Amino acid sequence: MPQTLVISIDAMGGDHGPSVVVAGVDIAARAIPDLRFLLHGDEAQINPELAKWPAARAVSTVLHTDKAISMDEKPAQAMRRGKGSSVWNAVEALREGQAAVAVSAGNTGALMAISKLLLRMAPGIARPAIVASWPTLTGVTAVLDVGANVESDAAQLVEFAIMGAAFHHAVHGSARPTVGVLNVGSEEEKGHDEVRGAHALLRATTLDLDYRGFVEGNDIAKGTVDVIVTDGFTGNVALKTAEGLARFFAAEMRSTFTSSPMAMLGALFASSGLRKMRQRLDPGAVNGGPLLGLNGIVVKSHGGADAKGFAAAIRVAADLARSDFTAEIERNIQRLTTILSETTTATVTATAEGVAE
Amino acid sequence: MPQTLVISIDAMGGDHGPSVVVAGVDIAARAIPDLRFLLHGDEAQINPELAKWPAARAVSTVLHTDKAISMDEKPAQAMRRGKGSSVWNAVEALREGQAAVAVSAGNTGALMAISKLLLRMAPGIARPAIVASWPTLTGVTAVLDVGANVESDAAQLVEFAIMGAAFHHAVHGSARPTVGVLNVGSEEEKGHDEVRGAHALLRATTLDLDYRGFVEGNDIAKGTVDVIVTDGFTGNVALKTAEGLARFFAAEMRSTFTSSPMAMLGALFASSGLRKMRQRLDPGAVNGGPLLGLNGIVVKSHGGADAKGFAAAIRVAADLARSDFTAEIERNIQRLTTILSETTTATVTATAEGVAE
Repeated sequence: MPQTLVISIDAMGGDHGPSVVVAGVDIAARAIPDLRFLLHGDEAQINPELAKWPAARAVSTVLHTDKAISMDEKPAQAMRRGKGSSVWNAVEALREGQAAVAVSAGNTGALMAISKLLLRMAPGIARPAIVASWPTLTGVTAVLDVGANVESDAAQLVEFAIMGAAFHHAVHGSARPTVGVLNVGSEEEKGHDEVRGAHALLRATTLDLDYRGFVEGNDIAKGTVDVIVTDGFTGNVALKTAEGLARFFAAEMRSTFTSSPMAMLGALFASSGLRKMRQRLDPGAVNGGPLLGLNGIVVKSHGGADAKGFAAAIRVAADLARSDFTAEIERNIQRLTTILSETTTATVTATAEGVAE
Repeated sequence: MPQTLVISIDAMGGDHGPSVVVAGVDIAARAIPDLRFLLHGDEAQINPELAKWPAARAVSTVLHTDKAISMDEKPAQAMRRGKGSSVWNAVEALREGQAAVAVSAGNTGALMAISKLLLRMAPGIARPAIVASWPTLTGVTAVLDVGANVESDAAQLVEFAIMGAAFHHAVHGSARPTVGVLNVGSEEEKGHDEVRGAHALLRATTLDLDYRGFVEGNDIAKGTVDVIVTDGFTGNVALKTAEGLARFFAAEMRSTFTSSPMAMLGALFASSGLRKMRQRLDPGAVNGGPLLGLNGIVVKSHGGADAKGFAAAIRVAADLARSDFTAEIERNIQRLTTILSETTTATVTATAEGVAE
């Protein structure tokens, strides 16, 4: 039997604020058993929404603040001036032990900065990572990091592999997720020192991971592996390139199906299939990207998500909180620490260079 | 009046060899005035193809070799053992002044390695780059580097900007191409040292470039700028991610339009529009990626290109050879050299760090 799980919500975040957030909480409250919510934000805006959604109202407590962080506030500003804002309070409730997990659809940079400040890094983890759940031909691939960092060394890429596998296991349900490192070719000699060093570490058999080697950009949509590890610069570019291409496709579809009366008739006949396809193709459709590596679980919802999307982010949060996600990461991070202490950085580099010969 | 232009062709390259190459030469010979071709490869395979294509036969000379490099040969092997092969001879003809430009649909790594070895870098340029011509909502964006290097420093990124702008001007016809640097955000403080250093250099007004600042992954398909500059690792991942997504999209289209009799009827009505759309969406459709930065123009055709695609690569080669492409690059590289000698690396870094504050 699941115990009651308390979820701390930034009710002011996202493009639509409380109207979408509270409606999303209502969907989640009806779909997922034994949840309670702390709603941080302006009660003058939240209470009228709760009045519309009885399932949400029954399980929510409003914690008032009239301070909010805008979507375009810089992370450094948000850290300096964010104390007492809805997102700050949502994360602080996690630190204070009032909630098990926090969800925000607000400004990613601000959420990351405040979460790092209040929660600190989890033991043994050097850098946080943001995960994207990418729809593929065969399921969902977790890609990380997609923007928490701009550079990552070999050991940090291995941390991402450990956290990504635990995430995929907890949220997308694969018993033993397969893991790949994103590179410009699948041969061992390809790529720069960081990816070759990560490859060498990941082949160390003492890590409890199903590591499959290097993968390439086209493997993301193909679903070749469950978890794809990359630095935050490359991951962010890949994700946004895909989002841009998806919008390009959508625009081409619209213009194709309005180009002639015959084509419009075609669209009418195929409309139900086309609608389903559009939903499947949106890289933002699988909502809920957790910030991994912190002392606490913080889930970022897409800023433009609708109520259903926000509820999906709550589900990700609940799945993470109710799984052995944190323990699984801790076990593997301990193994990594052992490997790293036995293998000096010099040796890892040498191994990577040996591979390059 | 254009003078006769001699194009050196690796007739054995690509997935289909001489059958596609010679048919492509025929299309180009009929479409572009005053071309002559040197066809390097096995005459026993080339001559029967020439017998089928009179326009190609009229302007071609076969230069026999029975040695060819396979599509999966490693670059290092190709350099050691490639002498006398069709791709080697095609590039050597360029060095010997027998042809103005070379085209190959063969193994990219081998072509790059042999071209660097035989042609050497152009004066003032540190690293070569491979360009991809990416179809966008508004035209074509040149993205470089997409795989010649795995890392690039600030000055090298600026070289790519100079070469990419000259390429877009010569091949895609924009009078003054706009240029952006690929980053994880458009604000000046974003990204790592290399992109911020390139940004600082590109804002130096003495370069003859229409520089527009940072762009993000979604700007590629949007066509925000004509030329997008990035390191070969990120560019390669972005290109292959897009190719993977395009295939995913094509598979979804097929399954949508065969999912029900109604949907199949819809596809029938919309078939002409759908065909046009498929052509526009293929990131490999705009064929012909030159290797830039060498002492000579070498154009890579997609290995899987058909005759029309190979002819498109020949057109890119002819456009580059008949433009002031090389002179334009030289002028701007001289300006860059001046800027770099005035600004020590330390200052550039300091500027980039200043920007980061």
